[in-house]
Amino acid sequence: MRPSGRASDEMRQIEMTPGFAKHAEGSCMVKFGHTHVLVTATFEEGCPPWLRNTGKGWVTAEYGMLPRSTHGRMPREAAKGKQSGRTQEIQRLIGRALRAVVDLSKLGERQVRIDCDVIQADGGTRTASISGAYVALHQCFTWMLENGHITEMPFTDSIMAVSCGIYNGTPVLDLDYDEDSNAETDANFVLTGKGGIVEIQGTAEEEPFTEEQFLRLLRLARMGCDGIQKAQKTALGL
Amino acid sequence: MRPSGRASDEMRQIEMTPGFAKHAEGSCMVKFGHTHVLVTATFEEGCPPWLRNTGKGWVTAEYGMLPRSTHGRMPREAAKGKQSGRTQEIQRLIGRALRAVVDLSKLGERQVRIDCDVIQADGGTRTASISGAYVALHQCFTWMLENGHITEMPFTDSIMAVSCGIYNGTPVLDLDYDEDSNAETDANFVLTGKGGIVEIQGTAEEEPFTEEQFLRLLRLARMGCDGIQKAQKTALGL
Amino acid sequence: MRPSGRASDEMRQIEMTPGFAKHAEGSCMVKFGHTHVLVTATFEEGCPPWLRNTGKGWVTAEYGMLPRSTHGRMPREAAKGKQSGRTQEIQRLIGRALRAVVDLSKLGERQVRIDCDVIQADGGTRTASISGAYVALHQCFTWMLENGHITEMPFTDSIMAVSCGIYNGTPVLDLDYDEDSNAETDANFVLTGKGGIVEIQGTAEEEPFTEEQFLRLLRLARMGCDGIQKAQKTALGL
Amino acid sequence: MRPSGRASDEMRQIEMTPGFAKHAEGSCMVKFGHTHVLVTATFEEGCPPWLRNTGKGWVTAEYGMLPRSTHGRMPREAAKGKQSGRTQEIQRLIGRALRAVVDLSKLGERQVRIDCDVIQADGGTRTASISGAYVALHQCFTWMLENGHITEMPFTDSIMAVSCGIYNGTPVLDLDYDEDSNAETDANFVLTGKGGIVEIQGTAEEEPFTEEQFLRLLRLARMGCDGIQKAQKTALGL
Amino acid sequence: MRPSGRASDEMRQIEMTPGFAKHAEGSCMVKFGHTHVLVTATFEEGCPPWLRNTGKGWVTAEYGMLPRSTHGRMPREAAKGKQSGRTQEIQRLIGRALRAVVDLSKLGERQVRIDCDVIQADGGTRTASISGAYVALHQCFTWMLENGHITEMPFTDSIMAVSCGIYNGTPVLDLDYDEDSNAETDANFVLTGKGGIVEIQGTAEEEPFTEEQFLRLLRLARMGCDGIQKAQKTALGL
Amino acid sequence: MRPSGRASDEMRQIEMTPGFAKHAEGSCMVKFGHTHVLVTATFEEGCPPWLRNTGKGWVTAEYGMLPRSTHGRMPREAAKGKQSGRTQEIQRLIGRALRAVVDLSKLGERQVRIDCDVIQADGGTRTASISGAYVALHQCFTWMLENGHITEMPFTDSIMAVSCGIYNGTPVLDLDYDEDSNAETDANFVLTGKGGIVEIQGTAEEEPFTEEQFLRLLRLARMGCDGIQKAQKTALGL
Repeated sequence: MRPSGRASDEMRQIEMTPGFAKHAEGSCMVKFGHTHVLVTATFEEGCPPWLRNTGKGWVTAEYGMLPRSTHGRMPREAAKGKQSGRTQEIQRLIGRALRAVVDLSKLGERQVRIDCDVIQADGGTRTASISGAYVALHQCFTWMLENGHITEMPFTDSIMAVSCGIYNGTPVLDLDYDEDSNAETDANFVLTGKGGIVEIQGTAEEEPFTEEQFLRLLRLARMGCDGIQKAQKTALGL
Repeated sequence: MRPSGRASDEMRQIEMTPGFAKHAEGSCMVKFGHTHVLVTATFEEGCPPWLRNTGKGWVTAEYGMLPRSTHGRMPREAAKGKQSGRTQEIQRLIGRALRAVVDLSKLGERQVRIDCDVIQADGGTRTASISGAYVALHQCFTWMLENGHITEMPFTDSIMAVSCGIYNGTPVLDLDYDEDSNAETDANFVLTGKGGIVEIQGTAEEEPFTEEQFLRLLRLARMGCDGIQKAQKTALGL
Repeated sequence: MRPSGRASDEMRQIEMTPGFAKHAEGSCMVKFGHTHVLVTATFEEGCPPWLRNTGKGWVTAEYGMLPRSTHGRMPREAAKGKQSGRTQEIQRLIGRALRAVVDLSKLGERQVRIDCDVIQADGGTRTASISGAYVALHQCFTWMLENGHITEMPFTDSIMAVSCGIYNGTPVLDLDYDEDSNAETDANFVLTGKGGIVEIQGTAEEEPFTEEQFLRLLRLARMGCDGIQKAQKTALGL
Repeated sequence: MRPSGRASDEMRQIEMTPGFAKHAEGSCMVKFGHTHVLVTATFEEGCPPWLRNTGKGWVTAEYGMLPRSTHGRMPREAAKGKQSGRTQEIQRLIGRALRAVVDLSKLGERQVRIDCDVIQADGGTRTASISGAYVALHQCFTWMLENGHITEMPFTDSIMAVSCGIYNGTPVLDLDYDEDSNAETDANFVLTGKGGIVEIQGTAEEEPFTEEQFLRLLRLARMGCDGIQKAQKTALGL
Repeated sequence: MRPSGRASDEMRQIEMTPGFAKHAEGSCMVKFGHTHVLVTATFEEGCPPWLRNTGKGWVTAEYGMLPRSTHGRMPREAAKGKQSGRTQEIQRLIGRALRAVVDLSKLGERQVRIDCDVIQADGGTRTASISGAYVALHQCFTWMLENGHITEMPFTDSIMAVSCGIYNGTPVLDLDYDEDSNAETDANFVLTGKGGIVEIQGTAEEEPFTEEQFLRLLRLARMGCDGIQKAQKTALGL
Repeated sequence: MRPSGRASDEMRQIEMTPGFAKHAEGSCMVKFGHTHVLVTATFEEGCPPWLRNTGKGWVTAEYGMLPRSTHGRMPREAAKGKQSGRTQEIQRLIGRALRAVVDLSKLGERQVRIDCDVIQADGGTRTASISGAYVALHQCFTWMLENGHITEMPFTDSIMAVSCGIYNGTPVLDLDYDEDSNAETDANFVLTGKGGIVEIQGTAEEEPFTEEQFLRLLRLARMGCDGIQKAQKTALGL
């Protein structure tokens, strides 16, 4: 029995509000239950130094949590003067995931910078970030098309992410904080709209897990991503 | 004529949503027009080192802006590894303003930490922060009373803040970004519910200003703070 | 009764020694009683990035305290690896104050960098810094004229600053450390030679203050600035 | 055809030299072909703050690369003043992997700190680090047993790691640098001696991958880990 | 011929003003010609962690330069966020030199912190710092004796320092900036009042130097230190 | 009697393995007994900013210690976020020593970056670094000649370094850790193949030393450097 009363293959309620941020070229407030992330996409002329004169662009991401987005307050990273290893790990993952479905040569030497800021956390902030970032990035690309910065939509596929885990011996979909902090195994899956796998990260928090368990988690992830994809399409009016 | 079409003594629409943040002991989403700040109040046992064994507590504040809360994107302070001078100046002001209406000896050796995070910026983020922080802090103190951490409400007065300025030669109330970035003079006022002055900061951005102009700004600030005080009372159900 | 025995409207003894620093284009050792600040002005070709191709220059300031300029030793900021919020607040104030009386377009794309280093502190270091910086900057501008970097003196007015406060219920001029650390209200005023107001910062350290009290402080500040202006003129031989 | 001429399921030559470092309680120079990592294990009395009074200990890891361990020189992280996101990601992985096979309650409130320093890099430094760290940690635990710091060997299993990937369309075992920098998909597997899975990290560098491909990589990883386990046993004389 | 017209064995004019800093337990403004260093000595109860429970105290030093103490402006180390290698090298040298003539066991578990701040630089700031620090430290020890913190003067000898070098092929005493920046060889000597050698640092800036040359420099240093010792005695009224 | 049983003028066993690092243009694993340092030399096109358009190049050095190269573990400087004063002092010394025997104008606007990483420490790491760096740099220059980056060997002499000290009242050559940590006086000498002195650093750790003692240390250093020079020649096949 899950703390939230959800079935083992049941996602939390998903909400996606594109255009949430007045100033950004693209944005999305994404909610997976009580996990709320504000994603913005910022268009920038020019690309990172290592891409100069290649005709290619870049998509990069940063991630942060408001200090009291969590149960107890987390010290503000700006005040501590550095980003934690966890923060860096997550923002690298988000950037990698998005780039996996973008044809960078269609961007030209331009960059989109994604900011994922967790307003409220209840487990699954990185997967909510990726799922919402797709919407914000889509909105930004549309803006770039309309403003003549690019001539073709650079997406090669859509992208979504969800976490699964083994909680009390049962594989379950879309861990919330109560589950996440007690799961024996925790795995994040990043999948494309066409079903390809872009990233798999599975970690045994206590006991090692088996191949069979892992495949069951992957199956749950596919079910969850179907729902996320629907929410993305609705948000984007596709 | 103001860019927004407001009268010279007209505030933007104020909204205050207490309890916005699920995890915090006190919180308030405060909106002054398009300026949106999420304020949370975190209760902490213990006080800063310099107050040990005095029986007194402390109220402190931190301030941050989401990178794309602004027109152009501001680099993330956590990534740059330090808080700007502006950030530090603002968070020192917020803490000082709140402490001016708190009897610290009624807190005992406890601290409340206020976090003001700008979700969207359109001028006046520091004054919106102070005004909303009063609500979040009030909610936190109520929680502390209900949970037996304190026995009396520590407030000695209420507190609110607003900016005024001279725009196109006219003193106006509650500057938005368009006005703020073009004002000749810019002043922030922190006033108490009973009309006392807690902080005045006036700066000539171009021409020096006169005593008469300054007094006119103070008068506008008093009018604005009346409206803010009403919104605070409504939010708190007082 | 003030600890120093001064009358409520009596400044400390002011001394200004221009040309104190052998290597700098402009300099001034300024003393307000036991508060001693060494100000230097450094001429630099080129301007900050945001002014490129505007034909305008810039005046900026940095501020520091020698570790044992104070009663107890303050940790060296260079060793701590960062400047405190207070330091940044003060150096931003000094730069803003000076720029208020400089026509930046007369500088061309050149910068003057002011360094204010407190050799000994006894209250009022920021206002002594501004008052002495005017002299150092004047000397630097004169050097620039003589060396053909500019063709006109860029000042539009002179500038001076002083702190006032309410000490034991009485408004007094030019707080020293004993007063400053016990004042109920503390205010800094930056005024021009012609009497314009450039910056006002008033803070209630305990009780909120009233409009009447504040106006009395402003009146004291005007008296103090008259004396400072005389000292500046004497120092510059004007 | 692999650049090295190896068969698709062929590991590089593995060498493990325990006791390489004169001063450390445990150490191992581990070589996977041209990838050379020096691992040391340092015994420390006391545990991290969050474990105080729990009777449990901790195993943690740090990772670094000599500046010219790589083809081109990498800037020294000590000189840059911070560890990269990649470094932090790797050292978190190493620590997590080791703790998965250690019964922390058998350590008491003691910590072992693992240092993995890459002397020469040719792909697979994180998996070589984990595999060698098992040997260094084993040596350290033996030292702790002999010196009376613990009374039972705290391992619950052994641990090893290897990378696999899809290179030119073919799943291959134990990527070297030439393969790693061109692989379409790159996956790291951390497995226990009994065959349990502790960590899986799979990333599509270009095209998303399929479930079938991923399972093939897992199968290769199991073969590689068998060889690593043999080398570990030989090194430890088990 | 030296740029200053001094004879090869002629020191610059030395001035030492003890008690220069109002707040410090000991202080000395030391001038070697145009090189001016303000040295303060701060008494602190307690000693560094590694001396706890040894009954011994410590003497440590910090060093800094005002940004415009030099010909061109040096960036402020507090603003850069770190002390240069040169700064650290010098402050380590100053501390080491002073400790060489202090019986640390006579301090008990107390520390004296020396701050050497260069007000104006014209070569030889480190040697002027050491020479003046002896005076400031002497004054501080005297204060400690008078206030009952110690019962015996902890000095075992006096200490002084001077630089020598080979300039235009000639060994000369007490290099000023013009000489220092062009010397072929540059050497700093720290000597005790009784003639013992505490530190020798000789560096060939261009050609290697010979043993004979080096001995000539040492002889010049002895002559210079005689003069410094006299100035110290005069300053201390000994 | 020395702890190692060596005669007072006896060096430890020296081993130098050029070409140790697969990727570097030059490298040398240098061992002075149990002190092991891996030195690499990296060729870089371009020179530091202050040499642009002078036709001259540069040789610079960085130094680091593996955390458990020492008896007790030293915190990793990359994790602490800064290099210690000692580290900076040493790397400045190494660079200075090498540049003393290089004709920088023969490099053209190119830089060689030397990295000295201590794999195991037993006293004398800085002198071993310099001695081994000569070999690595020689190898790098040879590579540069063979690859047409330079047309003449830029060395003007060879360079070697050794430490001496007074241990139990006796001057001894090539201090190991047991001696170094107990020596009364500790001196480092950097000498050229032709016998010139490039750097002398002598420090009294307890009692001041005399000129006679110092000259005896220099004589020992000359003997030690003869042996080091032989080892360098053998390593380079000269």
